[in-house]
Amino acid sequence: MQNQPLLLSSLLQHASRFHGDVEIVSRFAEGPIHRQTYGSAARRARKLADTLRQLGIVQGDRVGTLAWNTHRHFEIEYAVTGMGAVWHAINPRLLPAQIHYIAAHAEDKVLFIEPSFVPMVEKLAGELPTVELFVVLADRAAMLSTTIPNVRSYEDLVDEGDENFTWPSFDELSASSLFYTSGTTGNPKGVLYSHRSDVLHCLSICSASFGGLTALDAVLPMTPMFHANGAWGFTHAAPMVGAKLVLPGPKLDAASIGDLIEAEEVTVTAGVPVLYARLLQHFEAEGRGAGSLRRIVVAGSAPALSLIEGFERMGVSVCHVWGMTETSPAATFPEPSGKTARLAADAQLKRKAGQGHPMYGVDIKIADENGNELPRDGVSVGRLMVRGPWVTSGYFRDESPLLEDGWFNTGDLAVMDNDHHIRLTDRAKDVIKSGGEWISSIDVENLTVSCPGVADAALIGIPHPQWEERPLLLIVPAASNPATAASIYAFLEGKIAKWWLPDDIIFVEALVYGATGKVQKMELRRRYARHYLAWKPAMPSSEKQQTE
Amino acid sequence: MQNQPLLLSSLLQHASRFHGDVEIVSRFAEGPIHRQTYGSAARRARKLADTLRQLGIVQGDRVGTLAWNTHRHFEIEYAVTGMGAVWHAINPRLLPAQIHYIAAHAEDKVLFIEPSFVPMVEKLAGELPTVELFVVLADRAAMLSTTIPNVRSYEDLVDEGDENFTWPSFDELSASSLFYTSGTTGNPKGVLYSHRSDVLHCLSICSASFGGLTALDAVLPMTPMFHANGAWGFTHAAPMVGAKLVLPGPKLDAASIGDLIEAEEVTVTAGVPVLYARLLQHFEAEGRGAGSLRRIVVAGSAPALSLIEGFERMGVSVCHVWGMTETSPAATFPEPSGKTARLAADAQLKRKAGQGHPMYGVDIKIADENGNELPRDGVSVGRLMVRGPWVTSGYFRDESPLLEDGWFNTGDLAVMDNDHHIRLTDRAKDVIKSGGEWISSIDVENLTVSCPGVADAALIGIPHPQWEERPLLLIVPAASNPATAASIYAFLEGKIAKWWLPDDIIFVEALVYGATGKVQKMELRRRYARHYLAWKPAMPSSEKQQTE
Repeated sequence: MQNQPLLLSSLLQHASRFHGDVEIVSRFAEGPIHRQTYGSAARRARKLADTLRQLGIVQGDRVGTLAWNTHRHFEIEYAVTGMGAVWHAINPRLLPAQIHYIAAHAEDKVLFIEPSFVPMVEKLAGELPTVELFVVLADRAAMLSTTIPNVRSYEDLVDEGDENFTWPSFDELSASSLFYTSGTTGNPKGVLYSHRSDVLHCLSICSASFGGLTALDAVLPMTPMFHANGAWGFTHAAPMVGAKLVLPGPKLDAASIGDLIEAEEVTVTAGVPVLYARLLQHFEAEGRGAGSLRRIVVAGSAPALSLIEGFERMGVSVCHVWGMTETSPAATFPEPSGKTARLAADAQLKRKAGQGHPMYGVDIKIADENGNELPRDGVSVGRLMVRGPWVTSGYFRDESPLLEDGWFNTGDLAVMDNDHHIRLTDRAKDVIKSGGEWISSIDVENLTVSCPGVADAALIGIPHPQWEERPLLLIVPAASNPATAASIYAFLEGKIAKWWLPDDIIFVEALVYGATGKVQKMELRRRYARHYLAWKPAMPSSEKQQTE
Repeated sequence: MQNQPLLLSSLLQHASRFHGDVEIVSRFAEGPIHRQTYGSAARRARKLADTLRQLGIVQGDRVGTLAWNTHRHFEIEYAVTGMGAVWHAINPRLLPAQIHYIAAHAEDKVLFIEPSFVPMVEKLAGELPTVELFVVLADRAAMLSTTIPNVRSYEDLVDEGDENFTWPSFDELSASSLFYTSGTTGNPKGVLYSHRSDVLHCLSICSASFGGLTALDAVLPMTPMFHANGAWGFTHAAPMVGAKLVLPGPKLDAASIGDLIEAEEVTVTAGVPVLYARLLQHFEAEGRGAGSLRRIVVAGSAPALSLIEGFERMGVSVCHVWGMTETSPAATFPEPSGKTARLAADAQLKRKAGQGHPMYGVDIKIADENGNELPRDGVSVGRLMVRGPWVTSGYFRDESPLLEDGWFNTGDLAVMDNDHHIRLTDRAKDVIKSGGEWISSIDVENLTVSCPGVADAALIGIPHPQWEERPLLLIVPAASNPATAASIYAFLEGKIAKWWLPDDIIFVEALVYGATGKVQKMELRRRYARHYLAWKPAMPSSEKQQTE
């Protein structure tokens, strides 16, 4: 057999050769829509790659971006990876100090930035000695006067390149891109993907079982491209199958997304539950259904049952995916099988909110402390371990061994049932230990957010004089008809073990979110660390635990 | 990223770990149904691999099979490839002399045979010095007394192995399996697949665009496993996605297949047009529709429009695939896109009978004699060239260079239109050259088989004193209401260029088919070579050509 390396350039080349007139639609920050085709994007990416080559960028060099999901970001992804350099997409929502740390750690040689980030980068530029060139994502006319040194306009760089540049062939194990994980403790850690892992991951997410993308689709990734693997691999999957790609820019509010879905006849989206909750509300308020939308891919955290139900009522199928930056990211999903298809509707619904079943290429086990696989009985909680050709083997510029006997420890705790479906019970570091037993914060949170009048909820373990820890429930009430402590207790009772009930409920305006949209439980635990020490229960928690 | 090799053993291991209770249903030659699960098949394959190891089979050794699609053949495929040996599936429909040539050329060390082939193998066994062991696919009780030396029963071999055998890890570029092409000229040629090419091919055919298999499916490959790549890769795809696998054994008549579809709730099948034509007739005669069947994969030759229409009327979608043993085999298919979906129904139907669009991983071009790509205008006929990670780079034990500048010349002539769809116009060796112009035998045949009263048709080029060659049409008339020469001319006229009309039509009982079910045009041309030399036309063919 011909042994051709699996390279990201082959995706765009396939799209430009055989889906060359399929559109990439991109919305600028200011609102106007930009349209081009895969053929044109491939030509511009080749020109950009040629200019970067002229500027001395070589294979392995890191090239950073601070950018939204736009056609230019898409071109940069393919230009940089295609020429053999490493695309390093930085989350612009991080604090400037974190952005500085990450760009310095990665030793970025070029940094592409949206015009709106120029003021922030002006403050950092002097402290980024490795960055030889800053590029503002604009044409020359729109270039702002700025104090950033060595600054160019993006369109100038594209103009200067030769469109006859040809993508080089190299080892498929070469690095393609670099993404730093949010890291709630310590410094962010870099996950380095390879061309091989990217292409295999992409082939896998294009399976019918999973995203189910075809050339008939129009895909809108709400997930930023600076999250794992270019919007979770959707900027790879769309050209692989020749689907139309709709890039929403920075505006992710429900009305803007709803408009794009309608105008561009979007069939598939990708995003986190909080965005979908707003989109669902928007669709319901508009009363016109979900239009062309046929499937949503949900990841980042588990969707509430009400979210799944709401979309399915509108004829939209929900594909919930579990993964992390370290797994490229797609790893498991609640795949329906011949057996589970025969379950009752509510059991099927519950399954869809679980993390599910590994896709081919990902091997998982729920293991005890020694790495032994636990029974698949739906109750044995253990460490979720993962391995496979798109799972990380170690962090970038970090020599410490990461794998245990070839397995990556995700830091999640989970159970597996006898249908081989997993359900996360907690992040290992967020687990609540009460009287020697574990309480699943995820289970209680998922239940609580389906309580009327609750907008968001977090359950955290707080030191307790008698029980080591006891759960404290933080509630963001809904704007209209907010829940009360009494209504929440009434809702929860009978649905979970009595000793899982929080001893107290606190109403807050908002939870604390990190830059990747995850609740920062460590910060919440810090804030409320002394709560139970200073608190008088209405009923002693000891009694609750004993009555169970 | 973790760099795990892509090995076939990972498919069965995935299925047994995460779809362990999904069934493999197999029908014995005698009729009874055998049921097991992926879990049990994986255990038996490990035991068989361990026995083969004990018997001295090592990585790279060829292990032959003369077998139908059964659970045992499936186990052998995975046992042999998983341990690193090379599975060599031989077409038992070949002549004994061809089987002898192939088994000797491959230097098979073990040969697994169906009980019904024992008499044939008895005659060959003495002339196969490399074969150290013959294994009859039966349990010991069913073993026939035979003159074959060194013969064992399959179930004995399975019994003797250790189920704790673990699949070895090795280079993914290692050979996995060997299939000989029918080769209408010269000796058969061996195409050697690798683990890498097999897994990549499998990932690709599991895409939603293509076969669209999921864990909700039950797949019945009518295509024999001794054709390219284990029933065109379906014995890989089913475990990859956890689909139920239904193996029909030797009985491929429409009633037997129809019964299996009904009893096992089959959703997807794979096979050649002639089998589907019979199946469609059967469904129509029974009047109960196609039951659970939702999609048929058709390859080997192009399906007639009436076949596609007939299945679609029953709610069954038709996926026509083009490929060859040298391309693993799937290469192109008439993939619908946003653009083609807006075509009129009859234009879409016509498209589905074309060879279509390359899947990601396959690059194609229609090239002139110098390898230059021809315009994508739908009329420029050129050589169909293919390259990609599951395209052959050379034949087994054949040193002659095969590729032209990295491209494999398929030997087919084709056109590509501006939607990047290809349509074969002829095998290069079957092309008809009349007065310096080409006549597409495939176009005329496709049209002719949709003429009422025609069961099958072949158009061949026959030497002609004036025009170099002129087309001769061979017709197998339908059993009821057979067509006449006059009715066929009336049907064809106005639908093709006048000078494409055959000068004469001959009615035959059957065409000449090779062992892989393809019409042997070379043999037909030989038989009718002197036809036009001895023939008096009703109207001079010169006149026909001039009136065009």
